[in-house]
Amino acid sequence: MADAASGNLDALFAPRSIALVGASDDAARIGGRPLRYLRASGYQGRVYPVNPKRETVQGQRAWPSIGALPEVPDLALLAVPAAATRAAVEDCVAKGVKAAIIFAAGFAEMGEEGRDEQARIVAVARAGGLRLLGPNCLGAADSSIGYYGTFSVMLDDGFLEPGPVAIVSQSGAYGSHIAQLARNRGLGIRHWITTGNECDVDMAEALRWVIDREGVKVVMAYAEGVRNRALFFEALDLARRRGIAVVLLKVGRSEVGAHAVGSHTAALAGADNVFDAICRQYGVHRARSTAEQLDIAYAIARAGLPRGNRLGIFSMSGGLGIQMADDGDEAGLAVTPMPDDAQAELKALLPYASPANPIDATAQAMTDLPLMTRYIQVVLEQGDYDIFVAILGTTPALPSYSARLAEALDAAGPGGEGLIRAVTMSAPPEVVRAYEARGFLVFEDSVALTRALGAVARFAESFAAARAERPPLPALPVPLAATGTLSERAAKQVLAEAGMSFPDERLAATPEDAAAAADAIGYPVVVKICSPDIAHKTEVGGVVVNLGDAAAVRDASGLVLDRARAAMPDAVIEGVLVAPMIAGGVEVIAGVSIDATLGPVVMFGLGGVLVEVLRDVTFRAVPFDADEARRMIAETTAGKVLQGVRGAAPADVDALAESLAALSRFAAANDGRLAGVDINPLKVMPAGEGVVPLDALVLLQA
Amino acid sequence: MADAASGNLDALFAPRSIALVGASDDAARIGGRPLRYLRASGYQGRVYPVNPKRETVQGQRAWPSIGALPEVPDLALLAVPAAATRAAVEDCVAKGVKAAIIFAAGFAEMGEEGRDEQARIVAVARAGGLRLLGPNCLGAADSSIGYYGTFSVMLDDGFLEPGPVAIVSQSGAYGSHIAQLARNRGLGIRHWITTGNECDVDMAEALRWVIDREGVKVVMAYAEGVRNRALFFEALDLARRRGIAVVLLKVGRSEVGAHAVGSHTAALAGADNVFDAICRQYGVHRARSTAEQLDIAYAIARAGLPRGNRLGIFSMSGGLGIQMADDGDEAGLAVTPMPDDAQAELKALLPYASPANPIDATAQAMTDLPLMTRYIQVVLEQGDYDIFVAILGTTPALPSYSARLAEALDAAGPGGEGLIRAVTMSAPPEVVRAYEARGFLVFEDSVALTRALGAVARFAESFAAARAERPPLPALPVPLAATGTLSERAAKQVLAEAGMSFPDERLAATPEDAAAAADAIGYPVVVKICSPDIAHKTEVGGVVVNLGDAAAVRDASGLVLDRARAAMPDAVIEGVLVAPMIAGGVEVIAGVSIDATLGPVVMFGLGGVLVEVLRDVTFRAVPFDADEARRMIAETTAGKVLQGVRGAAPADVDALAESLAALSRFAAANDGRLAGVDINPLKVMPAGEGVVPLDALVLLQA
Repeated sequence: MADAASGNLDALFAPRSIALVGASDDAARIGGRPLRYLRASGYQGRVYPVNPKRETVQGQRAWPSIGALPEVPDLALLAVPAAATRAAVEDCVAKGVKAAIIFAAGFAEMGEEGRDEQARIVAVARAGGLRLLGPNCLGAADSSIGYYGTFSVMLDDGFLEPGPVAIVSQSGAYGSHIAQLARNRGLGIRHWITTGNECDVDMAEALRWVIDREGVKVVMAYAEGVRNRALFFEALDLARRRGIAVVLLKVGRSEVGAHAVGSHTAALAGADNVFDAICRQYGVHRARSTAEQLDIAYAIARAGLPRGNRLGIFSMSGGLGIQMADDGDEAGLAVTPMPDDAQAELKALLPYASPANPIDATAQAMTDLPLMTRYIQVVLEQGDYDIFVAILGTTPALPSYSARLAEALDAAGPGGEGLIRAVTMSAPPEVVRAYEARGFLVFEDSVALTRALGAVARFAESFAAARAERPPLPALPVPLAATGTLSERAAKQVLAEAGMSFPDERLAATPEDAAAAADAIGYPVVVKICSPDIAHKTEVGGVVVNLGDAAAVRDASGLVLDRARAAMPDAVIEGVLVAPMIAGGVEVIAGVSIDATLGPVVMFGLGGVLVEVLRDVTFRAVPFDADEARRMIAETTAGKVLQGVRGAAPADVDALAESLAALSRFAAANDGRLAGVDINPLKVMPAGEGVVPLDALVLLQA
Repeated sequence: MADAASGNLDALFAPRSIALVGASDDAARIGGRPLRYLRASGYQGRVYPVNPKRETVQGQRAWPSIGALPEVPDLALLAVPAAATRAAVEDCVAKGVKAAIIFAAGFAEMGEEGRDEQARIVAVARAGGLRLLGPNCLGAADSSIGYYGTFSVMLDDGFLEPGPVAIVSQSGAYGSHIAQLARNRGLGIRHWITTGNECDVDMAEALRWVIDREGVKVVMAYAEGVRNRALFFEALDLARRRGIAVVLLKVGRSEVGAHAVGSHTAALAGADNVFDAICRQYGVHRARSTAEQLDIAYAIARAGLPRGNRLGIFSMSGGLGIQMADDGDEAGLAVTPMPDDAQAELKALLPYASPANPIDATAQAMTDLPLMTRYIQVVLEQGDYDIFVAILGTTPALPSYSARLAEALDAAGPGGEGLIRAVTMSAPPEVVRAYEARGFLVFEDSVALTRALGAVARFAESFAAARAERPPLPALPVPLAATGTLSERAAKQVLAEAGMSFPDERLAATPEDAAAAADAIGYPVVVKICSPDIAHKTEVGGVVVNLGDAAAVRDASGLVLDRARAAMPDAVIEGVLVAPMIAGGVEVIAGVSIDATLGPVVMFGLGGVLVEVLRDVTFRAVPFDADEARRMIAETTAGKVLQGVRGAAPADVDALAESLAALSRFAAANDGRLAGVDINPLKVMPAGEGVVPLDALVLLQA
C-alpha cells in the first residue's frame, strides 16, 4: 500500500475530525444517530454536522455544505439517500477530504443501474484521492477514541469497551450481531469495521489495517467473498508473522448459500474447498459457527496463547472426564497421561481416584477443598500441561459453595506464561464473571471448550512456525510469451524450465528418428502423438505403449502419425514423443486452476478412478515453498498412500514437494495469462527415485 | 423379558412402597437425602426408614430391619457401605422384596476384590428373584408420582417436572448434569434412571423400560458400553416403531477415551465406528456433545416432529440468512426456494427484499410489523416448509420491541401439524420464555438450531420408514456343526447354502480332474489350492491365474499341489479349485466380525489397496434385510463407486444387497460359534449380472 492511501485509511477508521453530511435533528434517524453517538461517547475530535436547511442540529451548530466547513475534515459520513451520494462525494473531493463512509443502500446490490451509479462514484473518488467505505454498510468504530462512524442500533445498549478484539465484517448486520455477543461475553472490542458493497476499501484492506494496529490480538472477520486477493494474502501473512489470530466466518459453503451470496452483494464466492485450503495455508481459523468464532476470540482475548497443545482434564465424575478426553482428542489436543511418579503421589492423596488423565478425583474432592487444592497443585506442577480444565458441572451454581470452590481451584497455582486455566460449568452470569475474574476461561460445553482451545493451540503452533527463519523463495521463472494451448512437448519444456523434473523423453519427427530415440532411451518405451491441437491423444489412437524394440517403435510411430493426420487433418503435428515406460510408483494428480476470487492455485490429490468419488484434493495459493507443499501433501489421502500402504516403500515425498513448489512458481510467474495446468498422472516413485509426470497440459488465456 | 422381571422393573423405577435401609436422621447425608426428597415431593407410596439404632428418623418411625417391616415393600434403597451391602441384599431376598438400588461404590470399578463381592451379591439376588440397580449409581426417579430413589444433590434446587423426556444414564454425575441442564431449559422429565456398575439391570434394560411408558417422546441416554446387546437392539427397535427418539451420548470415541472407560466402570467399549454404524441402523441419533443432545430433546419435547425436512429461512440480514442456508444444507435440511408466483407476491410487498430462500426481508421489515406479518403469511402458506425459522439476532433483547415482534411473527400463522416454527435470538431468559410460550423454538446459534432440527427431521423420516410394512426376514439357515477354519471350498459351500451366490467353480482332486472341470466351466480359468490349513494361498504359490486350455490347467494343478505339499507337509489338502476368470466388476470387501460388545456385525467397504487408508467401511448388526443392506451400501465410498464412475455402468447393487443380507442371516444363525468371515475380493458386476465372491474365509471358534 502507498503511504498516502494507508494514511487515508487512518482517516476512515480513526479520524481526528468528522463531517456528518445529512445530519438530522432526530437522534433516532440514520442522519441523527452518528452525531448522538459521537457526542455521548466523548469523541475528542471535531464533529461538523452538515445540513443546508438548519442552523443547528441536535443543539450543535450546523454547516450548510462540506465546502463551507472551517477546516478540511479527515472523514465525511454520508447519511444521504443513494441519489444524493454522488454530489456529496464530489463535494468531498472538492474540499480535499481524505475519506468518506457511504451508508446508503441501493447501489451494486440492486442491479445494473445501481452498479453503474456506484462505478461513477468510485471514479469521482479515485480521481480526487478520496477513499470510500461502503456503500450499503454500517460504518466503522474505534472505541479507544470514542469514534463511532455508524448508525448501528447496537450502540443503544451502550458503547464498546476498548480491548484486544477487532471485528471486520462485510455484513453490517453480522458485524453488529457479533459485536453485541462479544460485548455480552465481556470482551473488549477496539476496532469495528463493516465494508458493505466494498466499492473501494474491501474486507482485505480493512483486515490489513487492523492487523497493523497495536494491541489487537484477535480479529473476528466475516466475508462473503474476497475482492482484492493480493491484499487478502498480505493481510493474512502479516497477521501470522505478528501473531494475531484471524478467526474468519465465510458464508457460501453450500450451493444454496453460494447462490444467495451472488444475489446478495454481487460478490463472487469462489470455490469453497479452495478457500478452506488457503485458510489452512495462512493459519487462519475458518469458524463453522458464530458461537465457535466467539469462543475462540474469547479464549485469546482473555487468556492469550498456550505453550503447546497438552490438555490436562480434572473432573469429579468419570463420565464427564472421558467425554472431554474424546472431545479434546477430536479437537487436536493431546490428552497426555500424568507421569508415573506423579500418579503415585495423586494415588496417595485420593486412593479411589483415577490419576492418569482424564484425572477423575471423584466426588470426594468436593468434600475436602484443601485436599482438592493440593491434588490440583500436583497436576499443575508435574503434569506439564499447556491447558488445564476443571469440569465443574452445575456445582458452582450453588451459592454457598461457588466462591470456596473457585478459591480452592485458584490456590493450586496461577495461569499465564503459556498455561491456560479453564473450567466448564453451568451457572448464572455473575458466577461466570467471578471465575473469569480469577483468570479462568469459562465454557458451558465440553465440545465448545475443546474446539476453541484446539484452534488456539493451532494458532500458537502456526505463529511459532512463522517466526522460524525460512529461506526466501527462488526467483520466479520468466513468464511465457505464448498463448493458447501448448503441445505436450512444449508444456513439459516450460514446466521443466520452471524447475519440475520430467523423464528423459524425445520428440521425433519420423518413425526412423523415433526408433533412434528409443535406442538412446532404452526399452520398453511408449510413443505418443505430439500436437498442440490434440489434447486427448488416446481418443485419436495417438498412444501406443510397451514397445520392446526398434522395429515396434518404427511401426507404432507410423501408425500414430497416420491416425492423427486422418482424425484431425488440420492439426499442427510436431511429431511423436518417445518416452520410457514407467513401472510402479503411486499415481497422483497435480495442476493449476484459476479460482474466481483467489486467483491461480496449485491443486494436488490422488489420481485414478477414485479421485472423482473421493474429491480428495487440496489447494494452495501461489507461490509457495517445499515446506508448504509438504503440509499440503499431508492433508490428503494421497499423502497417506505416499507413506506406504500394505508394506509398500514410502514414496519420494521430498521430490514431489519440490515439484509442486516449482509448479507454484510457474503459476505465480504467469498469473493473469495462465488458464490452467493439468499433470495427470504424476507418478511418485519410491523415496530417492523422484517423480515422473507422464503427461502435462498447459492452457494459456487467449 | 419375562413378565415377572419387567414387573420387578416397575418396582425399581415406579415403586408403590419403599424401604430406605441405612436411613439417616441427617437430611444432608446419603442415607438422609432420599427420605427428605420423598417426603418433600409428595410421594404417595409408603416409605419405611430402616435403622436398627433409632426409633425415629427425621421425625418418622424407623424399623430395625427389613424383616421387621409390616409389609413387603416394592423397593429397597440400600444406603449402606459396600461392606454391609451383601447382608442387606440377603435381608431383601428373605423378605421377598422385588428390587433394590445399591448406592455404594467400591465394587467392580475398584479391582478384583470388589468384582468378586459384586458377583456374590448378584448371585444372592438372582437366586432370590431380586432385581438390582447399581452399585455405584445415583438411583432413579419418576417425577409424575414424586418418586425420588436417589441422593443426587440436583434435587436441592427443586424437583423435576413431569414431561415427555426420559433420561437413562450409566453415569450418575452425567445423569444429574443433563437433568439440571434440561430443567434449566424448561423441559419436563418424567423418568430419570442411572445404572452405575450395572451388576444386574443395565442401560439397555432401563432404556427398554422407559421406551414402553406412555407419554415419553424423547430419551436422552448416556453410555460407556453396552452389556446386554440383545436387549439394547430390542429397545432401539421398539423406540423406532413407537416413534420415540433416542438421543445417545456414548463416550470412548477416542483411544484415550476408550482406555479411560475401561479403567472407569470396567465396561468394554467395543469399536467406535461399529457403534456409530449401528446407531444409524436403528435410527438412533448419536450426539457429539451434551449441548447437541439437549437441543434435540428440547426441539422434540416442545415442538414434536416435522412433516419433512424443508427449511424456510426468514431473515432481516442477507449475511445471517446465507449463513443459516449453509448450516441447514450441511445438517441435511432442504433449503428449497419459494415458488415463483409466491416470490412475485413477496416482491410486490417488499421490492428490495430477496424472496427466494433464504428470504431476506431486509431491515425494512422491522420498521413495519403488519407488513412483516403479511410477508411471513405468504411464506408459510405458499412455501410448503416443514420448518420455518426467523433470524432475529439481538433485536428481541430490546424491551420496547420484543413483545410486538413476537406478536407479529405469531400472527402470520400457527405451528403444529408437522410445521415447526423457530427463531434464533440472543436475549435474556424471560424473553426466550415469552417466545417459547407462543410455540416458537428458541436457539441462540444457527448451527445449533440446524443440527438439532436436521436430527429431528431424520427421526421423522426414520419413524415413517419403520411404520411401513416390511416383509419378514427369511428363516435363518441351520447353524454349522464344524469348528476351526473351513477350506475355501467348504466356506463357499456353507455361505452358498445360506443364500449367497458364487461362481460356478469345481473342486478337483487330481490334475486330470482339474482339466476336465475347466473344460466344463469354459476358459480362461484360475486354479487355486484348496485346504482348510492354508489361509494365505498366494504365499505358498498356490494360485495360478489366466489358464487358457486343458494342458495349462493340468500343468498348473500339478505345480500348485506339489508346492502346497512341499510348503506345508502336514496340511490336509482337498485338491484344487478350478474357477472361471472374472474380468471387470467393482472390487469390494464384505465380512463378519465379532464386536466386543455388539456381537456379530456384517462389514462392507471398498476393496483394493486404498481400503486401509480410507477406512471407509461400515457395519450392521445381524440379521438384516436387503433394504437395510442398501442403506448400508449407500453410506460408503464403495456405494458411490458402484453407481458408476467416469461413465462406467452402474453395478448390481441389488444383488450385492441380497448377498449382504444372506451373509447377515448366516452370521445371526451362527452367533456364538462364528469367529469371522472374510470375503475379499467380492466383485460386483454390472446391473443384472450379479456379484462374484472370488475368495471366502470362514473362521469358527475353537
